[in-house]
Amino acid sequence: MHSPAAKVSGYVVLMIVQIIFLVLFWLFVRYEKTALPRAIDAEDAGSANEHVSKYPQFQDIQVMIFIGFGFLMTFLRKYGYSATGFTLFMAALVVQWSVLMKGFLHMEDGKISLSLENIIDADIAAAVPLISMGALLGRTTPIQLLCMSIFEVALFAANEYVALHVFSICDCGGSITVHAFGAYFGLAVALMLRPASDQNEAGKLEGASYTSDIFAMIGTTFLWVYWPSFNSVLANGTGGERAILNTFLSLAAATVTTFVVSALVSHENKLDMVHVQNSTLAGGVAVGTVCNLLLGAHGAVLIGIIAGTVSVLGYRYLTPWMTANLRLHDTCGVHNLHGMPALISAIASAIYASMATVGEYQSELQDIFPAMVGTNGTETKIMGGLGRNATSQAGYQLFGIAVTLLIAIGGGILTGAVLKYTNFRNLKKDEHHQDEHYWEVPAAENKEEYLNMLAKLLDDDAVAAANSNSQSAANFNWRPFLLRNWNAIVPANNLYVRGALH
Amino acid sequence: MHSPAAKVSGYVVLMIVQIIFLVLFWLFVRYEKTALPRAIDAEDAGSANEHVSKYPQFQDIQVMIFIGFGFLMTFLRKYGYSATGFTLFMAALVVQWSVLMKGFLHMEDGKISLSLENIIDADIAAAVPLISMGALLGRTTPIQLLCMSIFEVALFAANEYVALHVFSICDCGGSITVHAFGAYFGLAVALMLRPASDQNEAGKLEGASYTSDIFAMIGTTFLWVYWPSFNSVLANGTGGERAILNTFLSLAAATVTTFVVSALVSHENKLDMVHVQNSTLAGGVAVGTVCNLLLGAHGAVLIGIIAGTVSVLGYRYLTPWMTANLRLHDTCGVHNLHGMPALISAIASAIYASMATVGEYQSELQDIFPAMVGTNGTETKIMGGLGRNATSQAGYQLFGIAVTLLIAIGGGILTGAVLKYTNFRNLKKDEHHQDEHYWEVPAAENKEEYLNMLAKLLDDDAVAAANSNSQSAANFNWRPFLLRNWNAIVPANNLYVRGALH
Amino acid sequence: MHSPAAKVSGYVVLMIVQIIFLVLFWLFVRYEKTALPRAIDAEDAGSANEHVSKYPQFQDIQVMIFIGFGFLMTFLRKYGYSATGFTLFMAALVVQWSVLMKGFLHMEDGKISLSLENIIDADIAAAVPLISMGALLGRTTPIQLLCMSIFEVALFAANEYVALHVFSICDCGGSITVHAFGAYFGLAVALMLRPASDQNEAGKLEGASYTSDIFAMIGTTFLWVYWPSFNSVLANGTGGERAILNTFLSLAAATVTTFVVSALVSHENKLDMVHVQNSTLAGGVAVGTVCNLLLGAHGAVLIGIIAGTVSVLGYRYLTPWMTANLRLHDTCGVHNLHGMPALISAIASAIYASMATVGEYQSELQDIFPAMVGTNGTETKIMGGLGRNATSQAGYQLFGIAVTLLIAIGGGILTGAVLKYTNFRNLKKDEHHQDEHYWEVPAAENKEEYLNMLAKLLDDDAVAAANSNSQSAANFNWRPFLLRNWNAIVPANNLYVRGALH
Repeated sequence: MHSPAAKVSGYVVLMIVQIIFLVLFWLFVRYEKTALPRAIDAEDAGSANEHVSKYPQFQDIQVMIFIGFGFLMTFLRKYGYSATGFTLFMAALVVQWSVLMKGFLHMEDGKISLSLENIIDADIAAAVPLISMGALLGRTTPIQLLCMSIFEVALFAANEYVALHVFSICDCGGSITVHAFGAYFGLAVALMLRPASDQNEAGKLEGASYTSDIFAMIGTTFLWVYWPSFNSVLANGTGGERAILNTFLSLAAATVTTFVVSALVSHENKLDMVHVQNSTLAGGVAVGTVCNLLLGAHGAVLIGIIAGTVSVLGYRYLTPWMTANLRLHDTCGVHNLHGMPALISAIASAIYASMATVGEYQSELQDIFPAMVGTNGTETKIMGGLGRNATSQAGYQLFGIAVTLLIAIGGGILTGAVLKYTNFRNLKKDEHHQDEHYWEVPAAENKEEYLNMLAKLLDDDAVAAANSNSQSAANFNWRPFLLRNWNAIVPANNLYVRGALH
Repeated sequence: MHSPAAKVSGYVVLMIVQIIFLVLFWLFVRYEKTALPRAIDAEDAGSANEHVSKYPQFQDIQVMIFIGFGFLMTFLRKYGYSATGFTLFMAALVVQWSVLMKGFLHMEDGKISLSLENIIDADIAAAVPLISMGALLGRTTPIQLLCMSIFEVALFAANEYVALHVFSICDCGGSITVHAFGAYFGLAVALMLRPASDQNEAGKLEGASYTSDIFAMIGTTFLWVYWPSFNSVLANGTGGERAILNTFLSLAAATVTTFVVSALVSHENKLDMVHVQNSTLAGGVAVGTVCNLLLGAHGAVLIGIIAGTVSVLGYRYLTPWMTANLRLHDTCGVHNLHGMPALISAIASAIYASMATVGEYQSELQDIFPAMVGTNGTETKIMGGLGRNATSQAGYQLFGIAVTLLIAIGGGILTGAVLKYTNFRNLKKDEHHQDEHYWEVPAAENKEEYLNMLAKLLDDDAVAAANSNSQSAANFNWRPFLLRNWNAIVPANNLYVRGALH
Repeated sequence: MHSPAAKVSGYVVLMIVQIIFLVLFWLFVRYEKTALPRAIDAEDAGSANEHVSKYPQFQDIQVMIFIGFGFLMTFLRKYGYSATGFTLFMAALVVQWSVLMKGFLHMEDGKISLSLENIIDADIAAAVPLISMGALLGRTTPIQLLCMSIFEVALFAANEYVALHVFSICDCGGSITVHAFGAYFGLAVALMLRPASDQNEAGKLEGASYTSDIFAMIGTTFLWVYWPSFNSVLANGTGGERAILNTFLSLAAATVTTFVVSALVSHENKLDMVHVQNSTLAGGVAVGTVCNLLLGAHGAVLIGIIAGTVSVLGYRYLTPWMTANLRLHDTCGVHNLHGMPALISAIASAIYASMATVGEYQSELQDIFPAMVGTNGTETKIMGGLGRNATSQAGYQLFGIAVTLLIAIGGGILTGAVLKYTNFRNLKKDEHHQDEHYWEVPAAENKEEYLNMLAKLLDDDAVAAANSNSQSAANFNWRPFLLRNWNAIVPANNLYVRGALH
């Protein structure tokens, strides 16, 4: 894929990657026992159902990954094929890679056990490069994106392993390990790919159309609706119900706040679709790490209010500042939707961890903060040892986010450098935010057809006019006029307009 | 929010409402025991899962509220931001308010217990003002809508409490308490906000575009698919399965009927998207109150056929009549989708209640018609006492819908009067059905850009024409011509068209 | 419906069909015992929940049928009303018919038992004519489609009964009985309805617009996401989890492969939305019949790679060849999405059946390959008797697909002949692929309005110009010019364009 001239080689490499996956699946992956037929004399026929009881939540997460993220990114007016298509491509590649990568970290007897849990984990992992893609949207080739995702997911799996199993932090909804990691990794790549100073203005297609904004609302609403499933799917015991309730309330509060703050800070006090599409979801991110803790309804609502406010202000003031001063273009504003809300979540987790007591969490302390109890069968791995007190756990929460930021930003800078300075083809400024360089788009031929028809009829009319009530138009030769001015008559992007008109 | 000049104050009031919610959550709401960690020595670890077993149905209802209702209302060609956005805003506000309001009616020890059931109830409550919003779509400001929703939900909670716990009517799918209430409340508000006689014609943007009609089908199909979850989520025992089966069959029959009747009564026997988008769902409303009863498949299908017929005829004949004669504008036709089908459901409930016997309903009579059995632990509340006979229960069903209509219409008239005669800003006729007064819409700047480009190229051409094959166009100064006629050249709503073209 | 002149009669016949369904439901259908209230002294209150435990998967399949199929077919730029609307119409008709038809094959005491299982089966049956509709999209009247679906579903139910209960083949995800049947039936109808040789070129509206392609991605992504539910819903025991895992992996592998092969074989190595919309799903079809077998992850991935490759190559080379040489128009390419991948699945099922041993499948052999075990209570029906060896089972798998193809193609030819040669109205070439012949489309009146406004302003301008800086345009009478040239000024399909512009 390193020849700048040929996208063919990039795709061929991706096919080779797929075939390598096939071989690795063959060598290493086996169905877990729960997915194997029972022995004829076995009795526990019921346990299969128990094992797949998270299937509905898995399906909700599938919708979030493939439809939610995909359509959220369709807001650009000429990048809808890429938004939905590359989301599908990337997620399909990453879920396989994630089953393998995360499997290698938990092998038994040299084999990876495959069950529903693995593909739930794989879907969650797919969110990571999709978040990063949001920062880069429209500024990279698909080959760059996909190669980035392979490296990023490997790094994500390692960081997650360290955070959860070595530092033993709580991160039920993945705000630290998924959202912060994905956002800052993507921003670091975007920083490396930043334009030269004389090309720093927004791309001419870097904006929404009326229709594309409504397509994006499909993504927003499905992410909103299913976010409680994302945050609760890995919770155990009664923590699952708390995760659902807290996420729901935080989203609702963030949504109300987003609308209000958007109206207050925007031009002419009009609501801004960018805020509505994104900041309404910040409540889901900000409550993620702590969603299974004993926040109380008011805790969840408060987190939602803070997240909605910070996110809208980020879109309104911080992102333009970063673009102007750092040349850091964050197309979807993932810093405002995923980055800062994830930091809020990490800080909240330190606060709530510092107040955690065994009296409150009872039998679930072991599950939520395993390093705070005496023995839990995993003592050898946990940094800081067992029997941590609450303050110490709070410190580890902050340590967890700090290490995550370090790895994400470091990894992103490295990846960005590879994408920029090796043989990957980089998009030129005027190729940004448009599908047509990598997709067949309707209607190049329609232009010709429309032009011919229009010129013909106008000529016919000129002839008719000459024959009957002679007027100045009769003397006008429309065809060369139309040919010369086609680009003006059909607005901006002449390849697409016929599609839009139909 | 009462200064007509400033929308700022309206949004500020909504933020204050959100902060009041925060305080109320802090003071009154606590997790229910099922969502609290078990004591270390407790044994019933499995019950958490049981408690959240309605989670998949809850998620279906979430999709209906946030995506179904939102996209159903995108059918207006320039009101898609408002349809999806205000649905999100209103639902996010109402779910919080509903948890509080309905909680206050069922407090224990001065506290509201928060569990999955509460947010299921909250989602159902959110449907009520969204139905009313359908009647008013495009004719109110968002501030009016949201203030209406706060009052309406309080009244809804009171009416529902009376209908279910005092009159002890059956209303499993909520057709009486949710659909009839929401529809007639909204119609009463619409009646109060009716235009002056000289402004009674349809708004110039009160119609669909080809694209907006397809967006609306997203709403229709998700509502269709998940309606069985809405109707069955509160059913107990085997009634849940009957609710699913009856709703499914009624929807299917209503859909076939809708297509046929639409073709038969429409202009040139062409199908009408308004009917397809809405009347296909009337089967779900009309079967709502009785969905868990022993209708039999034929009963469900018959109800669906009646509902589809009545709904299409309502759209074709009754709505235009109401607009012309009562100046009652019902933008989405909620009277045909929710109002009349809910009346059908109430009548059906009286008929089926009058035939109910303990021999048929066995152990479930107590759950479905609690006032018909001897003792059920709630005897103090039930009007008419226990041991009602079937005829008496039928009478209470009719009494329930009558009281609901009374409260809904009375409350709607009162609310409409407040919205009209106090300091709320009212939209002017030419502000109806368009997003641009409350939303940043793409492309104000694009108009300028397009105009300049077009004029420049046309001038260039005129110059070129003058130099080569001199023709009449060469003498024409395009720029002032275009400037003067821009509003004609770019159709109707010149701020949007560039978005649509892209 | 046989008068070519009147669509009215066709719709009337469909209403009569609906009423016949009502009568048949009344005569034959009763709730199954699980959906009836328990006797007061019964104890097994819990079993109701067990019985509806497949409800979440049912809802996923509902989304696939009503939203997935419907939106997948919106890719045509002027056929979106028909795609979503006729899907709804056909599915609503077919689900009722399927409950009856499949019920007649399994009556007890002359009655059909109605439970959740029946409507799951009904949804699956609805997929069959929807697949066929894909082959015919835009080339038939709705009356033809719906009459076809009634006949097709009856034949499908019979063939499925024979394949599963007489030949006793395995077909967990229905690739043989659903996908192959639907695809080849539809192709046979398309062959019968093929155009005359001089009308064989593509229709002028037979293509996508930028917007319609994104609408189609809604269909693609929901089908992708929920396909594991379709394949696993009828699996028992641990086969359910394997069906989920295998389908997920096969889809992922097919998706990656589709993107790569699409880029490699397409014009300028650009990705083709047709491939992305369809071939990504071929992995779900190709793994269907064998999804609950012990494929291993590598088996599923390999099947996905093969399916993605075959499907893209089919779109790129085979479909154009069939159109050019057989005049067989397959609008959606169902041969590439459903037909060939189903053949792959049948072949795979023979291969895996030939390797099946009781040592591997243990207690589930009886469920998956009932004819391979000694006694299973259904011995009287199984062709070839019980105790089949693996090779024999493999042979029956191939026999099953062969018989399915025979019945599907034979039935399709017969149906196509009826649609073509009896009194059904056939669409003319220039009526293809457009909604306006069967739907009210926005904006016929808007044309007039726009025209008047434009002409008026242009005239005003001409007057103004004459008064001030006299120019040639002042002498030009715009109104007749515009009237004559309206069809040229507003592109192609003048009835729709106003909708698109708004």
